[in-house]
Amino acid sequence: MQWYLVAALLTVLTSSQGILTTLSQSNGEYKYDYATVPFLAEVFKLAVSSLLLWKECQKSPPPKMTTEWKTVALFPIPSIIYLIHNNVQFATLTYVDTSTYQIMGNLKIVTTGILFRLFLGRRLSNLQWMAIVMLAVGTTTSQVRGCGEASCDSLFSAPIQGYMLGILSACLSALAGIYTEFLMKKNNDSLYWQNIQLYTFGTIFNMARLLMDDFRGGFENGPWWQRIFNGYTITTWLVVLNLGSTGLLVSWLMKHADNIVKVYSTSMAMLLTMIISLFLFNFKPTLQLFLGIIICMMSLHMYFAPPNMLLDMPVTVKSDEEKLIEVSVDRRPHS
Amino acid sequence: MQWYLVAALLTVLTSSQGILTTLSQSNGEYKYDYATVPFLAEVFKLAVSSLLLWKECQKSPPPKMTTEWKTVALFPIPSIIYLIHNNVQFATLTYVDTSTYQIMGNLKIVTTGILFRLFLGRRLSNLQWMAIVMLAVGTTTSQVRGCGEASCDSLFSAPIQGYMLGILSACLSALAGIYTEFLMKKNNDSLYWQNIQLYTFGTIFNMARLLMDDFRGGFENGPWWQRIFNGYTITTWLVVLNLGSTGLLVSWLMKHADNIVKVYSTSMAMLLTMIISLFLFNFKPTLQLFLGIIICMMSLHMYFAPPNMLLDMPVTVKSDEEKLIEVSVDRRPHS
Repeated sequence: MQWYLVAALLTVLTSSQGILTTLSQSNGEYKYDYATVPFLAEVFKLAVSSLLLWKECQKSPPPKMTTEWKTVALFPIPSIIYLIHNNVQFATLTYVDTSTYQIMGNLKIVTTGILFRLFLGRRLSNLQWMAIVMLAVGTTTSQVRGCGEASCDSLFSAPIQGYMLGILSACLSALAGIYTEFLMKKNNDSLYWQNIQLYTFGTIFNMARLLMDDFRGGFENGPWWQRIFNGYTITTWLVVLNLGSTGLLVSWLMKHADNIVKVYSTSMAMLLTMIISLFLFNFKPTLQLFLGIIICMMSLHMYFAPPNMLLDMPVTVKSDEEKLIEVSVDRRPHS
Repeated sequence: MQWYLVAALLTVLTSSQGILTTLSQSNGEYKYDYATVPFLAEVFKLAVSSLLLWKECQKSPPPKMTTEWKTVALFPIPSIIYLIHNNVQFATLTYVDTSTYQIMGNLKIVTTGILFRLFLGRRLSNLQWMAIVMLAVGTTTSQVRGCGEASCDSLFSAPIQGYMLGILSACLSALAGIYTEFLMKKNNDSLYWQNIQLYTFGTIFNMARLLMDDFRGGFENGPWWQRIFNGYTITTWLVVLNLGSTGLLVSWLMKHADNIVKVYSTSMAMLLTMIISLFLFNFKPTLQLFLGIIICMMSLHMYFAPPNMLLDMPVTVKSDEEKLIEVSVDRRPHS
């Protein structure tokens, strides 16, 4: 499968995720425990990957699987990073409001680029760096609070700790992605085998989280497994399936494309969600959304288009399409 | 003189123009007739150009001057375009509010690029087109009305005539610039001789405008020449000198660089004015200004940086600096 088809599918599914989650509320609140959704999604991903690995095992040659402890021990690390990230996020929100936090979340795009360069050693051209900064600027622009909205000057007036924690949060979030890419590309093990390891630990960590919540609440409503499907509707199940599917697509991209592709995919999904919301929930279009979309589209073109297309140079290398694919993996311009 | 030094000077002077004009008001209103300012600026430019031409005539070889009517007759055209533009502007403002008009004014950047291509036949690379669109997006972003400001949803709710006239206005404004560049580069006449023709017609048209105002007002306050300096302070004179000087710099750029350089110069000036205003007039910094500045700076870099710098290609052509200069005149990438 081509990476850009997977990326496009990821964009559509990620975008539906936001819409479905909103639709799964009744009267503006969740009737179900939202923490059960990522847990069930992990279980779903684990089940799908197991099935696919089993099918792969029927064929010959059998899939490559490294089972030594040294390698398996690396797979809980993404879950641990997310755990730390969640706590930093919680700490950040004691200093800044949610809307400032959301704006700072766009920094993740830039930190992903930096860690991509530092930890995975990938070279990006000057133009690609600019494209990454532009993507962050574009998503931020679309989120600028318009006139008429309340709570104005919180963005530049939070205490310095808030900004530092926001930056740390962006770094951790990027680190989880970069680390997963490193893990998936480290050897040529079967993707499904790698997934199984990843999602087993994911399931365990999500289970631990549900148990923690129960302890915090003093088991008032009984243990989580007794009320896991309380308030579930068809829409809630769609949210679970959707989250699981996006997870599987991200894994595929980490193995066959890279983090930058994923970042573009999810950024485009954010814009797509905003556009769909305009129609579904009767929001008014804003100038900043319109500008944000233009900026992100140009960023996309700048990052992925072959250099000779951008500069109108005579085509000296193979076909454009072939370059476009090579380019996503290693973008040293060929000339 | 290098074109980028002239462009930088133009940025600083254009930016001071806004600040000086604000400072020349007392208690938020003009004590003088603002229409006298462009008239006196035309006179100033005419005087300076005459002096410089006279000095040039002392040297040998004498400056080249085409005096045949066929050529001279082209020089009132920019003034005529501006006259039409002013009327279109007036008509537009009956359909849209000033703030929507200001936002639409950024279209001028894009129309300048298009007319530059169509009428002057200059080729721009794909990347340079993107840079031009980004400059327009960046200046628009900085003008997005922040939260807390009144009058919200006027931007997307004006009648269609308003938008059509806004586009026409942007085209006329660009056309005046493109036509002036054509005029200045048409032959290798002395810049000062070309200026004299341009500013003589400019002076006449501005005089006619003052007279028109008098007729409209029924000569209530007497003819304009009797009260031309009424309410003038030192700051008002600085406004006149400043406007005149920026005009001379623009002429120079039209001859030795091009319209795109001018557009960048004035866009940067707009941002600079906003930054200085933050300090001078105690405005609050907004996220949209910050984002707009980043976008415009990247656009500047994208448009003017040599392609091999953007793509990290090995340098195969002369020096970077040489390319940067060539590049402003004709940007066919050399490779």
